[in-house]
Amino acid sequence: MLTSFGESHGPAMGGVLDGMPAGVTVDMDLLQQFVDRRRPGQTIGTSTRNEQDVVEVLSGILHGKTLGTPIGFIVRNTDARSEDYDQITKCYRPNHADFTWQEKYGIYDSRGSGRASARETVARVVAGGIALQALSTLGITVEAHVSQVGKESDENVVAKAIADAQSDGDTLGGVISCTIKGVPAGLGEPVFGKLHAQLAAAMMSIPSVHGFEYGGGFNMATRRGSEVMDQFIKREDGSIGTLTNHSGGIQGGISNGEDITMRIAFKPVPTLMRDVPSIDHDGNPVTLHPRGRHDVCVLHRALPVVEAMAALVILDNYLIKKTNHL
Amino acid sequence: MLTSFGESHGPAMGGVLDGMPAGVTVDMDLLQQFVDRRRPGQTIGTSTRNEQDVVEVLSGILHGKTLGTPIGFIVRNTDARSEDYDQITKCYRPNHADFTWQEKYGIYDSRGSGRASARETVARVVAGGIALQALSTLGITVEAHVSQVGKESDENVVAKAIADAQSDGDTLGGVISCTIKGVPAGLGEPVFGKLHAQLAAAMMSIPSVHGFEYGGGFNMATRRGSEVMDQFIKREDGSIGTLTNHSGGIQGGISNGEDITMRIAFKPVPTLMRDVPSIDHDGNPVTLHPRGRHDVCVLHRALPVVEAMAALVILDNYLIKKTNHL
Amino acid sequence: MLTSFGESHGPAMGGVLDGMPAGVTVDMDLLQQFVDRRRPGQTIGTSTRNEQDVVEVLSGILHGKTLGTPIGFIVRNTDARSEDYDQITKCYRPNHADFTWQEKYGIYDSRGSGRASARETVARVVAGGIALQALSTLGITVEAHVSQVGKESDENVVAKAIADAQSDGDTLGGVISCTIKGVPAGLGEPVFGKLHAQLAAAMMSIPSVHGFEYGGGFNMATRRGSEVMDQFIKREDGSIGTLTNHSGGIQGGISNGEDITMRIAFKPVPTLMRDVPSIDHDGNPVTLHPRGRHDVCVLHRALPVVEAMAALVILDNYLIKKTNHL
Amino acid sequence: MLTSFGESHGPAMGGVLDGMPAGVTVDMDLLQQFVDRRRPGQTIGTSTRNEQDVVEVLSGILHGKTLGTPIGFIVRNTDARSEDYDQITKCYRPNHADFTWQEKYGIYDSRGSGRASARETVARVVAGGIALQALSTLGITVEAHVSQVGKESDENVVAKAIADAQSDGDTLGGVISCTIKGVPAGLGEPVFGKLHAQLAAAMMSIPSVHGFEYGGGFNMATRRGSEVMDQFIKREDGSIGTLTNHSGGIQGGISNGEDITMRIAFKPVPTLMRDVPSIDHDGNPVTLHPRGRHDVCVLHRALPVVEAMAALVILDNYLIKKTNHL
Repeated sequence: MLTSFGESHGPAMGGVLDGMPAGVTVDMDLLQQFVDRRRPGQTIGTSTRNEQDVVEVLSGILHGKTLGTPIGFIVRNTDARSEDYDQITKCYRPNHADFTWQEKYGIYDSRGSGRASARETVARVVAGGIALQALSTLGITVEAHVSQVGKESDENVVAKAIADAQSDGDTLGGVISCTIKGVPAGLGEPVFGKLHAQLAAAMMSIPSVHGFEYGGGFNMATRRGSEVMDQFIKREDGSIGTLTNHSGGIQGGISNGEDITMRIAFKPVPTLMRDVPSIDHDGNPVTLHPRGRHDVCVLHRALPVVEAMAALVILDNYLIKKTNHL
Repeated sequence: MLTSFGESHGPAMGGVLDGMPAGVTVDMDLLQQFVDRRRPGQTIGTSTRNEQDVVEVLSGILHGKTLGTPIGFIVRNTDARSEDYDQITKCYRPNHADFTWQEKYGIYDSRGSGRASARETVARVVAGGIALQALSTLGITVEAHVSQVGKESDENVVAKAIADAQSDGDTLGGVISCTIKGVPAGLGEPVFGKLHAQLAAAMMSIPSVHGFEYGGGFNMATRRGSEVMDQFIKREDGSIGTLTNHSGGIQGGISNGEDITMRIAFKPVPTLMRDVPSIDHDGNPVTLHPRGRHDVCVLHRALPVVEAMAALVILDNYLIKKTNHL
Repeated sequence: MLTSFGESHGPAMGGVLDGMPAGVTVDMDLLQQFVDRRRPGQTIGTSTRNEQDVVEVLSGILHGKTLGTPIGFIVRNTDARSEDYDQITKCYRPNHADFTWQEKYGIYDSRGSGRASARETVARVVAGGIALQALSTLGITVEAHVSQVGKESDENVVAKAIADAQSDGDTLGGVISCTIKGVPAGLGEPVFGKLHAQLAAAMMSIPSVHGFEYGGGFNMATRRGSEVMDQFIKREDGSIGTLTNHSGGIQGGISNGEDITMRIAFKPVPTLMRDVPSIDHDGNPVTLHPRGRHDVCVLHRALPVVEAMAALVILDNYLIKKTNHL
Repeated sequence: MLTSFGESHGPAMGGVLDGMPAGVTVDMDLLQQFVDRRRPGQTIGTSTRNEQDVVEVLSGILHGKTLGTPIGFIVRNTDARSEDYDQITKCYRPNHADFTWQEKYGIYDSRGSGRASARETVARVVAGGIALQALSTLGITVEAHVSQVGKESDENVVAKAIADAQSDGDTLGGVISCTIKGVPAGLGEPVFGKLHAQLAAAMMSIPSVHGFEYGGGFNMATRRGSEVMDQFIKREDGSIGTLTNHSGGIQGGISNGEDITMRIAFKPVPTLMRDVPSIDHDGNPVTLHPRGRHDVCVLHRALPVVEAMAALVILDNYLIKKTNHL
């Protein structure tokens, strides 16, 4: 289980990964590389905020092996420029969390969106990166890719779409597709904790996500039962599988051994690089002149976040499965 | 929190609703009417299994008021015909949970799909029906409707689509749209427990659901940021709201006071009324001749289930909100 | 995990035992016998309320084997005489929960103490009885006995002490000692979830319990370190053990393979068979004339409750242990 | 809820305090002073390990006020001397956790006992110190004192008892008494989560604790019901209280507004400053020559730990109480 903490412009982001089995090899270089995939400035249209995101593991790993104890870690915030946020401390930015946090807590660290910043996902990536290494020893892999940016699903025109939006001071959303391979049959809690329900909660908790589907998804709702039936077969190696995979690797909330497939929809980045009308805390109209350093499209940076969350869910369920028998 | 139990052909389904506040008025007739909406045989294309689904509350309510103690309840199974399921005890039905449950537990009550039967949703409806009554005293309402059956979203042709599928021995899925009105701003846990993440988990845990989206959803991923911006306004009554609602009533994982909107995709019913090829537990090819009593389309019966799950999530978060300040 | 429900004078007590592994043999006769040990009227000084306490399992067990699904069960309340409690609906009985429940919930089912009645322990005994059967297949046994009644620890004089108290319209408490044998080394979560902390919480949650100690307990606090050192030895069979067992089978919160020993202190039954001064809900002085049917000493009836709670804790930790390695 | 992490000789100890209400004033100087009470070297017979234990709050507090977000914090380990522990990496120290951790995890950071070190309690004290400040604004105070060291309860002779034990290379345990004042009536979950059951779990989770009692405790088990009856009275200010407090401020698992009283038994420190017989990991007999820097008696250092744990439990239940009504 991951517990995380940190405000965007506080001293550090961090987390505690609890319940990780003992004796798992963790390659710290590999982990840092995985975390680096989430850093901005690596692809067109991403923020120029330059965080090195150096992972400091404070506990739970000794000589490259997990101890079974909680893995505490931090990632320092080193490039925060709070002055960019002076205006917003008194205004509500549209499609942001300023208003709702103020309503919930009555107090809000608006610098860089504070805890509401997508910077919190760095903790997910650290923890998920460790989970991924554990899963890989079990032959389980997770791979996410950007399958759509705005209306474009052809990767050759995606870069242009982003450049166009950027030149308009506008932003884009899109869809990430994720496939988990090598999951053994039998994982998932079949009523409230269906494997896809856990995956949905994990993915929907990523900032900007507005939709989730697995297997045939929303399109499956338009088909007849006879069109989406995954026929069981016995393979030559004696294992049981299905000829097609409309079920997305999960039946009745439990993995069936086929690839687990899902799609995650991200809304466009809410911060535009143009003047935007809004109101201040007293309800007076204002015009926002966004400064800060913001992404035009976060999809590519979100890939390791999606993979991390998938890994945490699958590893949890792999461990729970062990308790199904005495 | 709802804990539930029950196999389709066992003596009873039931549950325990824990943490319900004390002093809430529960109208048992209203509750029974709500539960009755889930019963089969009320609309075209639903099972002819005739369960009366009489709710027996065993604790937690006295003289029509909640005591603050756990509300234990059961609903007897009275019309189970286990003989219809003789064949499937040795075979795996496609798109069903037979295989995955066997893999997970090594033992499976296949009569009527046992615990994997959608009959388990009766417990959700009982508990959610109580939550709905609590919410209504707070001015919060939940309304779900069938917005799509198969490819049809025009309700005038939906009945025909179902009849056509039925005459072909085939089945249909569809989409349910749900709106929650009157939710105050400030509900939801903003990182892992975002309000829409909780709603997604709740909805995805309903049998047959393959997709979830809120607000603009998957369509929002195709739009530019400037097109989906919900501008803040101060209303005449002094409250703050938004001009549009692409955010679906939730920003940063926290309710903003606007209507919460979501769409839930259901796959077609997996049991066809025609011969279907499959394999038995030894992997030998078999032809399934489904008998039993099955729905062609479950969307209408699922409406109270969707409303119930929404109510449980909203009430939970309403209570948690009280702990945000000393 | 056990979830329970039920008020003393409602229709039934019950519970849901979740997470029980699949394929465990449950002997229902043995279970009923275990539950019967908790019934009143079997030893001197216990209530004459005559509940048959017939266990009805509603789910989770088929053909004598657990399915891995939630085990729902009820025990009907058949001998409730609510008229005995007319006076107390308006008064606070000393050392009872009347006042505190009223303060917490603002509403209280005072008939037979409602949910605050020790009758709730019947659900613990049902669930724990199943856990005990699972543990016995692993060679783990739990045995509790009354080691002290009032000031007496000699069982030959205990009956007389109870009879004396009864003739005085008074009541007695005492101490139950419990030993768990056969627990493998390595069970328990070593920081907040120390095995003895879990056992303490479980035992202290039993009605009337005022103290818990394990191993040397309070007496150990009076000894020097050199006097209570459990020296490690290698036994002839190659296993590692300790020469003495001041640690009570738990070191650093984790079982070490020795017998787990603990002692649980019960206060005297609060309801006296004599007039007692108190106040009513308006604070006016009243004299209570207890009627009802009450125990003089509950220690013997509490034995299966202690064993049940111990079994639930040990089984939980046995399962969690499986997740310590991939 | 507190999540903690850290091994004794790793880079840092730390934790995340989740669910703390927003807007609570935290005085960092006061917090540091509270944490300093736990440091060694302040009273006779405590370790000479010289940790400054500087609290670094990384999130959740801004300008001296809680934000409602997780409070992440670390305390660096600066004075670790791992070379003192060379021998024990291959041996099992009696009454320590070396053997049980090895059995549970198959891997163990034995330097300074790793995660099993009482050094983990520094995270409890940081989190509990914040909770205490929150409680004090509600008029709730927690006070613990050493009521017994070894066989001595006269504080004038306690220092001599410790000096004597130290000169013998021996150690002592004792009893801490703790009183919580100002708790309103109505706190605690009345069945499994009784307030005293939660307090018991919290206290029993502190290293070296072997016993817990509240109110009359084990002594109450020796009394007749008529001797320990806490008579209800209406006070002049109109509030309801009890004349005596054998119940220790808790009835039926719920606070009744009287002082909550409890006693916690600590075993003697396991590490003696003399040669001790044991075995190595292969089961061969060895003689341990303890070095390291160890306490003779930890009772005084444990006082803030007890107060911290009490504060965390009471604050949790104070918040939960808010959810008992709509």
